Amino acid sequence: VEPLQQFINREQARFLAEVSEWLRIPSISSLPDHREDVARSAQFLAQHLETLGADKVEIWPTPGHPAVFATWKHAPGKPTVLVYGHHDVQPVDPLAQWTSPPFEATLRDGRLYARGSVDDKGQLFMHVKAIEALIHCLGRLPINVSMIVEGEEESGSENLMGLFHEHARELQADVVCVSDTDMFQPGLPSICIGMRGLAYFEIKVQTASGDLHSGTFGGAVPNATIVLSRILASLHDAQGRVSMDGFYDDVRPASAQERAEIRKLPFDSKVFREQSGAFVELGEAGFTTLERLWLRPSCDINGLSGGFQGAGAKTVIPNVASAKVSFRLVANQSPQRVEQLFRDHVARACPAGVQAEIMAFHSALPYHAPTQQPVFELARTALARAFGRPAVYVGEGGSIPFVREIGDATGKPCLLLGFGLPDGNSHAPNEWISIENFAKGIESLAYLYQDMGRIEVARS
Amino acid sequence: VEPLQQFINREQARFLAEVSEWLRIPSISSLPDHREDVARSAQFLAQHLETLGADKVEIWPTPGHPAVFATWKHAPGKPTVLVYGHHDVQPVDPLAQWTSPPFEATLRDGRLYARGSVDDKGQLFMHVKAIEALIHCLGRLPINVSMIVEGEEESGSENLMGLFHEHARELQADVVCVSDTDMFQPGLPSICIGMRGLAYFEIKVQTASGDLHSGTFGGAVPNATIVLSRILASLHDAQGRVSMDGFYDDVRPASAQERAEIRKLPFDSKVFREQSGAFVELGEAGFTTLERLWLRPSCDINGLSGGFQGAGAKTVIPNVASAKVSFRLVANQSPQRVEQLFRDHVARACPAGVQAEIMAFHSALPYHAPTQQPVFELARTALARAFGRPAVYVGEGGSIPFVREIGDATGKPCLLLGFGLPDGNSHAPNEWISIENFAKGIESLAYLYQDMGRIEVARS
Repeated sequence: VEPLQQFINREQARFLAEVSEWLRIPSISSLPDHREDVARSAQFLAQHLETLGADKVEIWPTPGHPAVFATWKHAPGKPTVLVYGHHDVQPVDPLAQWTSPPFEATLRDGRLYARGSVDDKGQLFMHVKAIEALIHCLGRLPINVSMIVEGEEESGSENLMGLFHEHARELQADVVCVSDTDMFQPGLPSICIGMRGLAYFEIKVQTASGDLHSGTFGGAVPNATIVLSRILASLHDAQGRVSMDGFYDDVRPASAQERAEIRKLPFDSKVFREQSGAFVELGEAGFTTLERLWLRPSCDINGLSGGFQGAGAKTVIPNVASAKVSFRLVANQSPQRVEQLFRDHVARACPAGVQAEIMAFHSALPYHAPTQQPVFELARTALARAFGRPAVYVGEGGSIPFVREIGDATGKPCLLLGFGLPDGNSHAPNEWISIENFAKGIESLAYLYQDMGRIEVARS
Repeated sequence: VEPLQQFINREQARFLAEVSEWLRIPSISSLPDHREDVARSAQFLAQHLETLGADKVEIWPTPGHPAVFATWKHAPGKPTVLVYGHHDVQPVDPLAQWTSPPFEATLRDGRLYARGSVDDKGQLFMHVKAIEALIHCLGRLPINVSMIVEGEEESGSENLMGLFHEHARELQADVVCVSDTDMFQPGLPSICIGMRGLAYFEIKVQTASGDLHSGTFGGAVPNATIVLSRILASLHDAQGRVSMDGFYDDVRPASAQERAEIRKLPFDSKVFREQSGAFVELGEAGFTTLERLWLRPSCDINGLSGGFQGAGAKTVIPNVASAKVSFRLVANQSPQRVEQLFRDHVARACPAGVQAEIMAFHSALPYHAPTQQPVFELARTALARAFGRPAVYVGEGGSIPFVREIGDATGKPCLLLGFGLPDGNSHAPNEWISIENFAKGIESLAYLYQDMGRIEVARS
């Protein structure tokens, strides 16, 4: 048995106890009430890294939430890996749907359940424990590591690029490594080579100065919930295509070969429905489910609100209604252009005299990995060694805004080694991470960093 | 000066103080938390009627909320009027939009502001004070009066007809009189000769067992808020017509004369928009606003709910979404047939595999008055005498389920003498009643009852 594997298996219970303590902190970055919790989460991580031989651990404040930065620079002439992760988490509502409390990490059926367990505290912690394992087993880290763990990923990473500009020198690296994605299926190690971008909006419709009696006025005045429903319904056509003019203009058409490779993956509709809980597969006509997720853009309503929402009946014509609307983008779409198309579309769909206001929230550019870079092959080897099965390239429907931005800014490849699973509920109640993936992920990362230590780099 | 007028004007301040005390009781019948308040409201009224010489005052319990019944049967050989009203009120949300607290009746600018001030405690109380004025000025009531004041009008009047069957003999009358409608405009006394019916539903869509991440799954799974928006948008066509198959089959076409009479009324678009607060007039193509309200059926969404409704952004695909949907009906539509059409429409509009559940709330048949009955002319005379201006016949977009049902059950005419005003906010924040209408309404009702006392009726 490998010493690294032996150490990781032996210490696994302690690793889980440590990450569980971190998961107790409700670091929800999008809710102002949790501001202090996000700060506490950064402090917890920083204190933990201090115990692992880092030569520098700093908390970087921002106008929003703080990031944690650390370095282990003990391998001159060897490559530098920049590990990126985030310590903030999604909101937890609807709370009633959680089987165990979201901030009391709970082991159940080979899974660790908690908000943040897989997205992303649990996965970032795997890098931390890989570093600990290497130091323990080899006496030192065979490569140089920098680590930046932001506190605003779930609310738009608004200050991350600012930190990159401010700390450009400290964040220089040969490769960026991120664990915030999923494996294709249990036991099948996966490297993510594409991510969709994001453009997220809120739309608010107002039709009158106040609510009106639906008997006295029904049929003769505009109704904000009807106007909003009609605008929202106009965003898709009957074939499931986004029906905003110009939306597909910038979409890179997928090659026949790309589509063929995706079709080779062991996709199972029944498993997909079981894992997602979706009653049916449904999307753009002419594409498979994986193509819809990885190659095609999409539009979702994320929330809907207006009028009387209590129990029973209230005969009212709502004067205000609002919705959250988001678009997932693929190369070469840009959030800025999609925002303009959305504004134009709503302006055309809104009846004269009715007010429709649009607010833009965070956005992200889509990402495609430079798989010709040698580090991708090293990663496949390390994953195969830990999991005992060849690794596959996959796409990811979600966004990590950072990935594309750092790629553009540094010109360095970004390795997306994710250990979540498709039904991990990362933004839903009952989020979990597989205990097996937690251990094998730590092992994979330790092998990868060990193998990278055989490479010599010339410093200018 | 008439003694009745003199008495009413002199005692007006006391009348307002009395009704204000009643208005302090938050008798919201549709919210289970207010069950005790509705019961207290019935007790308050019963105790007040005891002081006004009624020969019988009873609280009639029901499986829902209690009704108050009272009689003054001191005029043998004279007609009996059955006064109907309701002592329950609408919910008050959004509470933040109230200028003064909804259950602290407040005099401001010639208006009494409170939930229930016009709908319907304030208007029912005008009958009570007309009775008091007649007894004071004439020494006795010149007609017989029965009064039934239910506690469930705002939640569907579910037990009212049961009370009518149970107490058929006690509720016998020659004419039914209801004050729960509006005057066409300030100073213009109005008799309502038509009311729309109602069919009210909740629709709930479910697409998956739980919420899903909109990145990981967006574009490949159904979204409950999108499905719901598309179903709701399909309820109207681009001309503002309800686009459910068969919806207009039973609509009685209006005659050219009816439409011409409606066009003679002093309708002013600018005043309509100012009073309603609606930014524009909007409805079925080919009809005027008054025709849309009085002659045409309509469909409104009364509430909309799904997914993330908090501040900020959450990248979630909602698995559940719901809406309240109601239809206003005209003769000869029936709620039962509209329910079937709605269920058929939703079943066709819902994608395969997605669940759409429909619950039916309360309903009401549309109503048309028998204006050839002599009591309508008596009422016009009484109104003209109090207000100094001829009364007009108007329609009403809203529903009082009772009116049509009692009309059908008894074959007796129903007089709808309403003293609200179109911008009275009866189901919205800042509900109010005009102090002037409150006084002149009491006066009108006293004259009407006095004049009816000149009629002799033969009892079988």
